[in-house]
Amino acid sequence: MWSHPHRKTDDPQGLLMGTPRILEPTQESHHDPWPLQRAAIQDALSRLGRDPAHRERFAPWMNLALHTPADLAQLPFTTRAHLQVDPPLSDHGVPKSDIVRVHASSGTTGNRTISGYTAADLNLWTRMVARGLAALGVDRESVVYSTLAHGLFTGGFGFHQAATMLGATVIPGGQARSATHVDLIRRLQPTVLFSTPSYALHLADRFSPLPPVTLGVFGAEPWSEADRKRLEALWGMRAHDTYGLSEVIGPGVAFECPYGQGMHINSDHFIPEIIDESGTPLPAGTWGELVLTAPTRHARPLIRYRTGDRTRLDFSPCPCGRTLPRMARIRDRVDNMKVVRGVNVRPTDVAEALAAHPAEFGSWLLEVTRPGALDVLTLVAECEESGRPELARDLQKAVRAALGLTVQVRLETLGTLPHTGGKTHRWKDLRLTKPHRT
Amino acid sequence: MWSHPHRKTDDPQGLLMGTPRILEPTQESHHDPWPLQRAAIQDALSRLGRDPAHRERFAPWMNLALHTPADLAQLPFTTRAHLQVDPPLSDHGVPKSDIVRVHASSGTTGNRTISGYTAADLNLWTRMVARGLAALGVDRESVVYSTLAHGLFTGGFGFHQAATMLGATVIPGGQARSATHVDLIRRLQPTVLFSTPSYALHLADRFSPLPPVTLGVFGAEPWSEADRKRLEALWGMRAHDTYGLSEVIGPGVAFECPYGQGMHINSDHFIPEIIDESGTPLPAGTWGELVLTAPTRHARPLIRYRTGDRTRLDFSPCPCGRTLPRMARIRDRVDNMKVVRGVNVRPTDVAEALAAHPAEFGSWLLEVTRPGALDVLTLVAECEESGRPELARDLQKAVRAALGLTVQVRLETLGTLPHTGGKTHRWKDLRLTKPHRT
Repeated sequence: MWSHPHRKTDDPQGLLMGTPRILEPTQESHHDPWPLQRAAIQDALSRLGRDPAHRERFAPWMNLALHTPADLAQLPFTTRAHLQVDPPLSDHGVPKSDIVRVHASSGTTGNRTISGYTAADLNLWTRMVARGLAALGVDRESVVYSTLAHGLFTGGFGFHQAATMLGATVIPGGQARSATHVDLIRRLQPTVLFSTPSYALHLADRFSPLPPVTLGVFGAEPWSEADRKRLEALWGMRAHDTYGLSEVIGPGVAFECPYGQGMHINSDHFIPEIIDESGTPLPAGTWGELVLTAPTRHARPLIRYRTGDRTRLDFSPCPCGRTLPRMARIRDRVDNMKVVRGVNVRPTDVAEALAAHPAEFGSWLLEVTRPGALDVLTLVAECEESGRPELARDLQKAVRAALGLTVQVRLETLGTLPHTGGKTHRWKDLRLTKPHRT
Repeated sequence: MWSHPHRKTDDPQGLLMGTPRILEPTQESHHDPWPLQRAAIQDALSRLGRDPAHRERFAPWMNLALHTPADLAQLPFTTRAHLQVDPPLSDHGVPKSDIVRVHASSGTTGNRTISGYTAADLNLWTRMVARGLAALGVDRESVVYSTLAHGLFTGGFGFHQAATMLGATVIPGGQARSATHVDLIRRLQPTVLFSTPSYALHLADRFSPLPPVTLGVFGAEPWSEADRKRLEALWGMRAHDTYGLSEVIGPGVAFECPYGQGMHINSDHFIPEIIDESGTPLPAGTWGELVLTAPTRHARPLIRYRTGDRTRLDFSPCPCGRTLPRMARIRDRVDNMKVVRGVNVRPTDVAEALAAHPAEFGSWLLEVTRPGALDVLTLVAECEESGRPELARDLQKAVRAALGLTVQVRLETLGTLPHTGGKTHRWKDLRLTKPHRT
């Protein structure tokens, strides 16, 4: 080993370059978070109330006296529709040149949300993901392999930046072919894997044996305790869940600690509530829709954003000693949205495409299978003209345009599908129940 | 617009976060570079000579007295084979935990090169790309859209990091679908595009009209002056070339200035020579193989690396005032390598696969076309059993494994292909000559 004549860099904090001089991710306050949360919310309300894009909704709340966390419930909700502004970023309340990064959710023009980050927002995001990774043991000795996509999706860059901040050796596998991932995993023997649970299962199923990996950090799609057991058995790893969403910041909202009993919410920056369908706050421990307030973002702070994700909160002490509250693994979506091949699919989007189509359709459902590495989405729809292959092709095109995702179409004669009447679930998800080769 | 109570970040250099406090990229020395180059080379030789992985080759040169740049020619060459060590990174001469990033070239297990970066190497890389981007006008007012892949390939991250360092608004489109890129380009109206020339042409051909983009920065594949004219006409942009290779550092080795008359080599860190087939140095202005010495890398400094790229050097003053020497656009490869769908394809790899196959083949060639967005590679091979479709399928599998790239196989009867005898060119590249819709 030789000396390092050039070690002194002009990056004293090591933020870009990975020098592990990061104190904050492993430090957490044991004080009551409310005074800081309150100050941040009041600051956000004051900024929103003066911003032309938000004044109408928030000016009335600029001087709201927040006494207890329950007072949050007086404020209006923010929904996904509020974030779909045109031109994009015009609601961000900062000079455009202060935005240094843009990410976007999956979807098509109409339902894609586009989020900008100032330098401080990027820093916040990176520190929040790093806090979770540090809790799970990622440090400068770690060798991290990521199969996440680094692009508009926040998952890849979010984890990449945080692992870099912690000084780990980061191998951004990205969207390489599976054989390439496997070759590099075999030769570089990473200690940490960033992936989606389904892709990590696919790699282990298809390319066994792989060298053991100490830690797997997963996110971006729902998975079960059974998946965790399989991942831990196949990879010889501890498998942990994380939570985040691009509308709020990306990954970094919540992370499991090594005890794996719920995900700690970084509630100094992402303040959680649980509500019922009518929007009424529910007590801790009750299942309902997660609402997040992100008041410390510079660009577009969020007040009471309805995530659509169903979970419950736990404010009891965690055996790890962290005082951050915990949220349960996401059970499902209040809007029936599912993630298929990384794309958010909502039955309402399909319903609109069917309604806009000249042909008449009866009952319908969305079937998802995972025959290999990738999910296959099939729209099964009843139709009087079910024998016309060109109709299936035409519908396929329309639904593909609506979802931004390739879809198979199977037309059935009327009366074939079960009619449940009224609001049906629309989903037949065969991904998680398929028999596995174990 | 509101105030920024949180603007003060713990990133005073703005390296991660894009605060535009970057002095170096726009500053270049007008002094003779040799004293600094010499000191860096002597430092690299001293490190290599003491490193167990390199001692055998470099210990004899540790105390070489370098008087003039011509003395470089006394040192041994480094070839791609020298970089393919097992285990990977074992030749990097730094503690493994000092490596914060790993990238890899395309290819398969046997011919992939894997490169590690220390924090200082990442910093060097980012500054060198930023120097080129700054020369072309990228700054904190720029809105940059990138269609490059952010993964093992150095192109995506190299440009991303540098644009972030310069404080631009960076939109990492990455490997999204073309329709997604186009939607975001239309709505976010970037001023700068990072792409491969072929993909930018594809987008413009397929999705016209697109909003004009001021500047296009291209790399990663060969392109022509005709391509430049088409890109400039279709996108309303200035289109500029850059040069780099993952074995040396990635993009950032050389970049065009706004005059576009050759690419300025960052010769304070990447010292160029041109050699003939026998390895003899050639005078400035002569076409030959580019050799690069990268002595300031911490991890695996490179002495006289044979790039395989054919170009020529120009040390005359540039109208822009920069004193960095210039290299001509890459004409071709000395090893006949071509880049197909981002993968390096060498006829020698195909020859080996054919030789290892039980069937007997006659003459053969590689045909590349670009019917749509993507290149199609076809192996045309003479064979006595040319009528057997299962032979074509079997050969397809073998060549795919050798190249890491899907390939079409067309078997012809013996005597169909032109026999040129001896060393044939093997390539029929129809990508750049196809009639374009203009």
